[in-house]
This record gives sequence, C-alpha cells and structure tokens, in this order.
Amino acid sequence: MKSIRSTLSLLAIVVVGHTVIAQAQDPLPSWNDGAAKEAIVNFVQTTTQTGGANFVPPEERIATFDNDGCLWAEQPMYFQAFFVFDRIKSLAPQHPEWKDKEPFASVLRGDMKSALSGGEHALIEMAMATHAGMTTEEFETIVTDWIATARHPKTGRLYTEMVYQPMLELLAYLRANGFKTFIVSGGGIEFMRPWTEKVYGIPPEQVIGSSIKTQFEVRDGKPVLVRLPEMDFVDDGAGKPVGIQMHIGRRPIAAFGNSDGDLQMLQWTAAGPGARLCLYVHHTDAEREWAYDRKSSIGKLDRGLDEAPKRGWLVVSMQRDWKFIFPFEGN
Amino acid sequence: MKSIRSTLSLLAIVVVGHTVIAQAQDPLPSWNDGAAKEAIVNFVQTTTQTGGANFVPPEERIATFDNDGCLWAEQPMYFQAFFVFDRIKSLAPQHPEWKDKEPFASVLRGDMKSALSGGEHALIEMAMATHAGMTTEEFETIVTDWIATARHPKTGRLYTEMVYQPMLELLAYLRANGFKTFIVSGGGIEFMRPWTEKVYGIPPEQVIGSSIKTQFEVRDGKPVLVRLPEMDFVDDGAGKPVGIQMHIGRRPIAAFGNSDGDLQMLQWTAAGPGARLCLYVHHTDAEREWAYDRKSSIGKLDRGLDEAPKRGWLVVSMQRDWKFIFPFEGN
Repeated sequence: MKSIRSTLSLLAIVVVGHTVIAQAQDPLPSWNDGAAKEAIVNFVQTTTQTGGANFVPPEERIATFDNDGCLWAEQPMYFQAFFVFDRIKSLAPQHPEWKDKEPFASVLRGDMKSALSGGEHALIEMAMATHAGMTTEEFETIVTDWIATARHPKTGRLYTEMVYQPMLELLAYLRANGFKTFIVSGGGIEFMRPWTEKVYGIPPEQVIGSSIKTQFEVRDGKPVLVRLPEMDFVDDGAGKPVGIQMHIGRRPIAAFGNSDGDLQMLQWTAAGPGARLCLYVHHTDAEREWAYDRKSSIGKLDRGLDEAPKRGWLVVSMQRDWKFIFPFEGN
Repeated sequence: MKSIRSTLSLLAIVVVGHTVIAQAQDPLPSWNDGAAKEAIVNFVQTTTQTGGANFVPPEERIATFDNDGCLWAEQPMYFQAFFVFDRIKSLAPQHPEWKDKEPFASVLRGDMKSALSGGEHALIEMAMATHAGMTTEEFETIVTDWIATARHPKTGRLYTEMVYQPMLELLAYLRANGFKTFIVSGGGIEFMRPWTEKVYGIPPEQVIGSSIKTQFEVRDGKPVLVRLPEMDFVDDGAGKPVGIQMHIGRRPIAAFGNSDGDLQMLQWTAAGPGARLCLYVHHTDAEREWAYDRKSSIGKLDRGLDEAPKRGWLVVSMQRDWKFIFPFEGN
C-alpha cells in the first residue's frame, strides 16, 4: 500500500537521479533503490498514516536494533574484545601473576587467538577482570577514554567511525516518524551507554545489553554503585525477548539484526498483530566490509537465513542494497 | 534564584487569589502555597533556564518516583497484596490443597492478618503462586481486568482513583518542562505497567520495579515469555539505585519517595553535581488519608525523617501542603 506521497517521491528520484533535490527528499540516501528500501519506506508510511488500517499510535512504535554487525562492524572480532585486551594490557602492572596465567598471558604476548581458545570460560574470566571491581562512574570514564582513542587494527579508524551509514539513516528516519529506537545487544550495556547517544542518537535508557551485578555502597559518605565480578544477564538469543520485556515492557513492531543471536528477537517481534518489520543485515561485501554468514564464528547467520524467506523477513545485502557502508566512504 | 516570570506568576496568585486566572497560571493548583511548592517551582525554573548556572539539558532531566505511598496510597496494605489475595481466591478451585496449607488457608478464610504473619517467606510464596506460571501477555490481561474492577476496602474506590492529585500535577509539570518521569517502585514491574501510562502518563519502558524471571519459549509455533516462580530483582532500598542504573543508566536529578525504602534512591540522586530535588511525602493526614511514619509496618519513614533536614531534602506534609489529596475530592 503505497501512499501518493511515496509514489511521487520515488518518481522524483527516478526522474532527477542523484541530484541534491532527490537526496533532500530521500530519507535513506545511502540505500540503493530496490525491494529492501521500498519495504522499509512502505512499513513506516503504513504504520504512521492516521486513520489507516495499519496505523500504530506513537507510543507503540518501538524499534529494536542489535549493535554488533548491525549498527557497527564486528570483525575480525567483537570490538568489546579489543577493549578487553587493551584493558588487560593497561592493568598488567597491577597483576604480575598474569604473566604466567592463561588467558591473560596470551593477551600480554599479543597472541589473541590463543587467548580466545579457552572459549566462553576464558572470555568471561577476562571480562570480569576488566569490567568489574570499580564503580559505575569509574567504568564509564574508562570506556569513554578508550572509545575516544582506540583504533581498529585493519582500518585504523575509531570504532565509532565504523558504524553503518545506512543504519544511521534508518534510525533517524524511524525517529522522525515517531518511533522510539532501542539497542538490544549481546554486548555489555555499560560498554555501550557512554557513546550511543552521541553516535546513534540513542540515550542510555534505551540501551539493553548484557550486564554484571552491581551493588550500592556508601564509601566515605559518598554513595557509589560497585561493579561485581558476577554475570547478571546475558542479552543474546532467547535472552533478547527477555531483555526487551524487562526494559521496554512492550513488544517491538520492528526489529533489526544480523545473526542467529537475533533470531528470537525477530520471532518475538514478528508474532505480534498488525504490520511488522523484521530485517536481517547480511554481510555480503568482502571488499567494502566483510563477507560471512553460515560458517562464521562471529555473527553467525545460519538459521536466520533459512527462516527469513519463509517468514517474509527482509534480508538486506550490504553489497547490493547499500550505496555506502561507512560514513567516511562518502568523504 | 527566581526568574522574573516566576516572581510575576507568584505575585499574580497573591494579588488575585484563587481565581480561575491564578489556577490557569499555576502548574500545581492542588499544592498549598508554601516552602515545598516554592522549592519545586524554583528547582524546575533553575534547571530549565537556558544559560543559567544550573541549567540541565533535557536528556539529563531524569525524575524518579516511588509508587506505593508516593503516587498512590498504600494503606491498610500495599494494593498489590489485595491483588494477591484476590488471585488466591480466584485460583482456589484449581488448588484444593490450599484449604489446608498456610498462608493460603488463611487467605481463603478471609484472615489476612494471619496470612501475612508468615513474613516475607509467606509473601513470596503467595506472590509466586499468583504471579508466575503464565505468559507475560496472560498476566497483563489478569492485571488489567483486576485493576479495572477491584475496589479499596475502606473507600470503595478503584485503586487507580486513589492516586495523589498533587503528584499527578507534579508529574505533568515536570514533563511539560522536558523531564522524563520514571517509576522506581518495590512493587512488581508487570503489576504496574498495564495501567501506569493511562493513570500517570508513564509508559511501560519508564517503569522500574521488582521482577521475577521470565523464559522465552515457542509454544505451538508461537513465541511466548513464560513467567517463572523465581525472584529476579528486588527494587527496594539499596536495590533502587541498582534498578535505576540498570534501566536508565543515568543518575536522576530529582527523586520522590515516602519511606525508608526510598532512602538510597534519594541519597544516590542527591550525590550528583548541580541542582537536585529530593522530596519525601510525609503521611500526616489521618482524616483525608492516613497518618503514619516511624512505627508503621507499611511505608515506614524513620531514617528518612532524620536525614531529610540534615541534607536539605523537602518533607511534604500531606495535611499542610496539599489542598486536595485524591482527584475525587474536588468533585
């Protein structure tokens, strides 16, 4: 169901091509014209058209986005893992025992592959050693300092530059149409909050992620929240609908992911009544980004690729559907 | 630091008295003129005045409110306890064993005092028996049906009518000035969410409360979240700053409570930099509401009454400071 305005807008683009005029009218200029872009625009128009059959009141326009591999890149490993490794190196002088203790010893030797070979147990041990033991304010400062300076080993860019321009446009387009945009990520909630407002326009109260426990204490008369070395919640896979219910208390009408870790979030979103938009970002561009799916150890997309066509979910090919991937490409 | 506009506005009220004109200018018409009302208005003006020394950008204007005894009444017991008892009566036919099993047997005999004599253990047992075992959607329907029909044993009013008119005005006044209002309650998060948007203008994603665990399942091809009989989080006392950090990720600049269960929330709020507003509602009106504080088993306010004057927190006397208490009084 395309509105007249939408049709006119598409015609304008066809007629005048990539001129300034078309760009000004196009809310998604970094998206190539095609089925994916059209489906997104149709969804927004149909859910926001007052009096329309699919109209959704503003307070129910909830859209949830995975972060790693959906809003920013995640190769050659989750960016938070680089943060963990950098923290281990910074903290090493206070932990002489790490020189002989795995997985820390491998990190200090620069052998990240061996460090990660210990699997989930090693990862959690490293996360706890670097994410706990300080106050929430101290951790916020640590993340803020790191994200402002750390650079990606391949591109040399700041990690916050390695966000997807088409997704930034999608976030802004949804918000301009009364949607409330949330992050629902397996990443650490307090690792994301210090920079998501600036980078994505998503405030801390709209960030959902994995967390460790915290404890209220009064230290020297000053109340603090101390971060404890104990997992509280894992916001991945079947945890995502749980996290959504806990934080939002309302089912999203649109959900965006890129891996099997987002499958249950998309299922949960799709199962509600009325118009729904479920979308997978498919990493298909080995030249401009990375190409991976069913066999990847990071951001594996296997079940999701089978489910999407059966359920009418969009699969966006980065190579085919995105004119630009990173903001710096256009410059 | 009072702005010219505020001074003029106060003068207008003094000059014309309680006329329609004054009411139209007064954002808090159910508050008697006095130190409490003046402090609230001053706080809002000083934090929203662009260029002022105490200006707070809109995204940081976070205000948190306790619910029981702060936004609605809590006597002769928490309203959620009435819900629990009503649920036990409704579910009794499916639980013949409850006739001989405490605390259920006492509830079914109508002896609520005995039912509550088992302390926290008995309360949790009753809560789990009535709040778990169904999907989140089923529970929402149960709460919605109950809150629409159940009536308070003393006033005969719907529970949602027993909200405090001055606090409704305060919520609206803060929001009109760019504040984001949150509930931070020891009550069940999913017990509040079905009605807080309608009653308080607070959407589900801005409700923080105690919770039980939920689990994602696919039942007959349909994804559901099942409520499990296991506590997840207790949002009371030292839990309140933890809940605030988990859900909001930002320290409030204003906090409102009425009991020692709110003490740590007020401490946490007060400890941030810049202008802060911390306020206790003091139940001092035995005639229009209830009068209780240091010795009450429900909504005990003891440490808070000692701390407030030392720290410059407002203590609002319902008897002295509130012209009306409940919305129905004015009718």
